[in-house]
Amino acid sequence: MKHPDLQSFIRHGTLYLSAAEAAALVRRKGLAHCLHAIADHIEADFRRWPDFDKTARVASHSQAGVIELMPVADEHRYSFKYVNGHPGNTRHGLSTVMAFGVLADVDTGAPLLLSELTLTTALRTAAMSALAARTLARPESRVMALIGNGAQSEFQALAFLHLVGISELRLFDVDSTATAKLVANLQGHGLRLTVCQSTAEAVRGADIVTTITADKTQATILMPDMIEPGMHLNAVGGDCPGKTELHGAILDAARVFVEYEPQSRIEGEIQHKPAEFEVTEFWQVLCGEQPGRRTAVEVTVFDSVGFALEDFSALRFMLATANEFGLGERIELIPRLADPKNLFALLAAPAAQAQRTKSLETTMQG
Amino acid sequence: MKHPDLQSFIRHGTLYLSAAEAAALVRRKGLAHCLHAIADHIEADFRRWPDFDKTARVASHSQAGVIELMPVADEHRYSFKYVNGHPGNTRHGLSTVMAFGVLADVDTGAPLLLSELTLTTALRTAAMSALAARTLARPESRVMALIGNGAQSEFQALAFLHLVGISELRLFDVDSTATAKLVANLQGHGLRLTVCQSTAEAVRGADIVTTITADKTQATILMPDMIEPGMHLNAVGGDCPGKTELHGAILDAARVFVEYEPQSRIEGEIQHKPAEFEVTEFWQVLCGEQPGRRTAVEVTVFDSVGFALEDFSALRFMLATANEFGLGERIELIPRLADPKNLFALLAAPAAQAQRTKSLETTMQG
Repeated sequence: MKHPDLQSFIRHGTLYLSAAEAAALVRRKGLAHCLHAIADHIEADFRRWPDFDKTARVASHSQAGVIELMPVADEHRYSFKYVNGHPGNTRHGLSTVMAFGVLADVDTGAPLLLSELTLTTALRTAAMSALAARTLARPESRVMALIGNGAQSEFQALAFLHLVGISELRLFDVDSTATAKLVANLQGHGLRLTVCQSTAEAVRGADIVTTITADKTQATILMPDMIEPGMHLNAVGGDCPGKTELHGAILDAARVFVEYEPQSRIEGEIQHKPAEFEVTEFWQVLCGEQPGRRTAVEVTVFDSVGFALEDFSALRFMLATANEFGLGERIELIPRLADPKNLFALLAAPAAQAQRTKSLETTMQG
Repeated sequence: MKHPDLQSFIRHGTLYLSAAEAAALVRRKGLAHCLHAIADHIEADFRRWPDFDKTARVASHSQAGVIELMPVADEHRYSFKYVNGHPGNTRHGLSTVMAFGVLADVDTGAPLLLSELTLTTALRTAAMSALAARTLARPESRVMALIGNGAQSEFQALAFLHLVGISELRLFDVDSTATAKLVANLQGHGLRLTVCQSTAEAVRGADIVTTITADKTQATILMPDMIEPGMHLNAVGGDCPGKTELHGAILDAARVFVEYEPQSRIEGEIQHKPAEFEVTEFWQVLCGEQPGRRTAVEVTVFDSVGFALEDFSALRFMLATANEFGLGERIELIPRLADPKNLFALLAAPAAQAQRTKSLETTMQG
């Protein structure tokens, strides 16, 4: 018995979800629902961590930025994401981070879903951050400082509102127009917003501090004297070699949680630390193998770089939801052949080919 | 001054070339022309080998097969291919090898072209094989044995006809219906065809032997006693750990050429050989840094596993030719945003968004 997603691929081709269709999906399902559901998918997948064939992502660095491929697989499904990071892109009217990806069938290699992942990455990163904070921050956390008010900041804000119970945000960005945009976008969501003039001002008194800055050159966003007992730091922006946001002494005085240690040693805040610097993989906390926060005064750091499994979880959710709503279109990314050993027949005249495709459909409907 | 391909991406999105459109492109340009042009692109790129950021492909193995990602980049362009290998796929009516890939801009990470690569892989593999044989086989080679008559065999046959001057083919496959299909497809191309009853019969007297079998279990296609002095072996089918086609003693008695040594040590015929087993990277022969064939009697082996650079070259050709003919369609794989820092605006109501897109287009036309 073939899985319905594989049957659909064989009959109709790869499901393609454009950025516009992904946005329509989120609007229709509701953003809060999507954040909850993606966090649930991530949690479920992280709880079966040993089931996955994991690898640090494959990065191609240039002067202007980085292009990465992030594959992961379990016994049934394989996914990869293509994602870039180019801080200078806004000059061209392009996003700093652009992404797309594929969910495929392990038994056949069939690409079941091709999806935009720029919007989806913002959703899954926010869902992952909120899931980690729900697990690691003090339960009574209500105030969050949000440092870096760019493309992903609204998603972080709303994930922490809906999943963690944050009710007040303290905002700072070196670009005040970014903050103004964030404030405008968050109107009507019931969050109390305070625009601050510096990182230090924003951080003061916060329960949680989220750093999500993009610039490679602004390397130390948080200094040790800003950190208060019991804070949870959600460090999202430092995610490649040479790009960090936290002063090293903050890590020394905190308990540090990571997604996938081999990748975080290369890309995370801990990249400047020796190999023996102690970190805990977050899945171990979820599974009860390692403690999360132990006291109300210790500082916890989620040193997040973004791991392929989060995209795998998000792609599972997007495919199921696209199927539920009938969203997306079928594309011929892979040729449909009446005889799979006769690839050459693709080059026959279109008339002959239409005939073949017709008989193929007849066969399949039969 | 932006490159026209980047300008087109910014204005209209990623160019998408489906399998049907790629086939239309090849029909319109002519298969012989495409094989010549792709071989020329590969040769030009191999001649500037040190310009590329190279990596062995990232493979995810399962019981049923393998899924691989193959990235490569130079200073200006980045490409990757997704490709699977599942010998049992024909049972589901699916191809053993299915592929697609992307050509992207290094300066911005923009995915310029998303293309089918199942057909294109067959073209570039055949072009690569013919390019290697043109360089390494005896110049008077006219007879080729073609062992394995599956999906890629027609492309190999025609590349050797058009690029190497092969006029006679000796065919064998364990599946005689595959051979019958190959014979039917090659009618009218001016090749003399002989259907043989065994590999040994097909190989006897051939100048060149191409092995392009798919089954992991048929591990030794060519035996030492089949090999005659001066033969060139084009070993295409052995391309992953545990999948080889040549008896080890054949390699010991031959000069072995590979594409990218670190990858071939893992995947090629030489995977069973010690690390010190001598091989020559093919680009060195093209650049005159290493000799190719030295005598008319030595046996040369092109231990081909398929390298990412060949897809890079093929994608460059497909993009230029699609632009020339106006083929393919523009898709919104990446969201088009009026303000790249305002990704959240994607989730606004469609009416508000249409307004924004309109003002974006006005700005860009201005």
